[in-house]
Amino acid sequence: MNIKVKAHASVANVVCAFDVMGFALEQPYDEMELKLTNQVGTINITHIDNYQLPTQPNKNVAGVALHAFLNAYPEKNIGFDLIINKKIKPGSGIGSSAASAAGAVVAANQLVNNYFSKPDLVALAMEGEALASGAKHADNIAPCIYGGITIVRSLSPIDVVQIPVPNLFVCIIHPQIEVKTAEARKILPTQIDLKTASAQWANVAALVAGLMQNNYETISNSLQDFIIEPVRKKLIPNYDELKIACMQAGALGGGISGSGPSVFMFCKNEVDAINVEKAMQSIYTNTTIPFETYITKIKK
Amino acid sequence: MNIKVKAHASVANVVCAFDVMGFALEQPYDEMELKLTNQVGTINITHIDNYQLPTQPNKNVAGVALHAFLNAYPEKNIGFDLIINKKIKPGSGIGSSAASAAGAVVAANQLVNNYFSKPDLVALAMEGEALASGAKHADNIAPCIYGGITIVRSLSPIDVVQIPVPNLFVCIIHPQIEVKTAEARKILPTQIDLKTASAQWANVAALVAGLMQNNYETISNSLQDFIIEPVRKKLIPNYDELKIACMQAGALGGGISGSGPSVFMFCKNEVDAINVEKAMQSIYTNTTIPFETYITKIKK
Repeated sequence: MNIKVKAHASVANVVCAFDVMGFALEQPYDEMELKLTNQVGTINITHIDNYQLPTQPNKNVAGVALHAFLNAYPEKNIGFDLIINKKIKPGSGIGSSAASAAGAVVAANQLVNNYFSKPDLVALAMEGEALASGAKHADNIAPCIYGGITIVRSLSPIDVVQIPVPNLFVCIIHPQIEVKTAEARKILPTQIDLKTASAQWANVAALVAGLMQNNYETISNSLQDFIIEPVRKKLIPNYDELKIACMQAGALGGGISGSGPSVFMFCKNEVDAINVEKAMQSIYTNTTIPFETYITKIKK
Repeated sequence: MNIKVKAHASVANVVCAFDVMGFALEQPYDEMELKLTNQVGTINITHIDNYQLPTQPNKNVAGVALHAFLNAYPEKNIGFDLIINKKIKPGSGIGSSAASAAGAVVAANQLVNNYFSKPDLVALAMEGEALASGAKHADNIAPCIYGGITIVRSLSPIDVVQIPVPNLFVCIIHPQIEVKTAEARKILPTQIDLKTASAQWANVAALVAGLMQNNYETISNSLQDFIIEPVRKKLIPNYDELKIACMQAGALGGGISGSGPSVFMFCKNEVDAINVEKAMQSIYTNTTIPFETYITKIKK
């Protein structure tokens, strides 16, 4: 018995809603083919892409997630063969490792008649992603498993709230530089002013309302981050110029995807998205940094 | 030309959404009658209640708001006579002064063909409420002017986001003690952990989603406050017992209304609300503190 799944890229740390909100992207996605075997407890992994990712199950994000899956699954008479065609570049900041982990456990669950709930799958995939990022979080895993826009309300217990997907286009630029997640974490403040925090959650509250009401003005107004962006933008060359150019080209707002280096911008229609993509290109063409840009939508 | 308006009570600082979310209550409300006069720049105030509030315009919240209104209104040939029948007890923590200020400017605006926008009215009413609370905020004024549930996203510029009203009952207990707003402010932390802050805005995000989806489980899960309640609950006798009793009686959750002393609880239906009100009474009957309880709904 085997199954093919698409594991979609995702944007986490959505501007003001750091550590909480994420959304899945229509493009890019990994293709994964999972086969149920009777090689008890054995996981075989084959990568048919060119990213040189390790294929030993205990060193591969999908492998660790599948291992957690087998540990949690009560029947002990199964194993998995997994073929991954990774299309989401590792290290691009759009949930490449989360897609591997989430895709693997979603596929596995379909092979065992959906034994596990979605929150269970989030927990299992988190085991895998911890291998890649060194910390357990679900910001990318939750949208990858639930689709659409998700709020990770709590990790203990796992509580994910899904909200309806508004009609938005997403422009992404991936400057081909390395941002170390550990470094991006180290520069965050440990303490913040209560006043700043409440200003931030005012934007978070309005952003959720704006997205659910498909109200472009509210979405645009609330895409402000007083806490994370001011420190993390230094990790991304020409960030301020990039953002100003995107806003002038018609973007509703946006920010760093995950901990970078990709940057995303929401646009209310395709014409704006094309203009914003051009603005991104115009800024980065003036640098020596290789980059990619693309336009996609939030995956429902 | 004269007009009668009802100025409704409101709950601010809705649990996790401190300083941001508020909602208007169906009951109680002040009755206000405003008459347009040709006594240029003159404001006369009469209170027909028994709260002994000052009636000099510069010492009366509604008077100060009307004064701000006259200052901002371009034509300088009018004055106002105001009669207030206040039914929202001053100092009860459900926006009594905000109702005076908001009601006055809403009534005045109707007498001048709605010259001002709602955000303008919020700004004018804030002038009045500053007299009562010593600080400018719109947590009670916004729901009083807009109705329903409001998110004050920003005060500069004023940006209020209104969200649809879910089908909730509200139980309120008003312990008849004095909580000084200045004191309630002084005990707040000035700095908080980023981790605590992001856990708080996870709840804020989920609360907005839960309210907009009328999802009782999400509403209940997200009504958690890691920052304000732990310090302010000391100002309200028997707070922990009260809350535990309410939750056991079926409340979805709740907390301190404004800076107290009133405490509110959301309930999903009238049966639960009656049980929660009884639970409130049972806890406070065991104290020597006089109190009132009542059941109402969110005003649409």
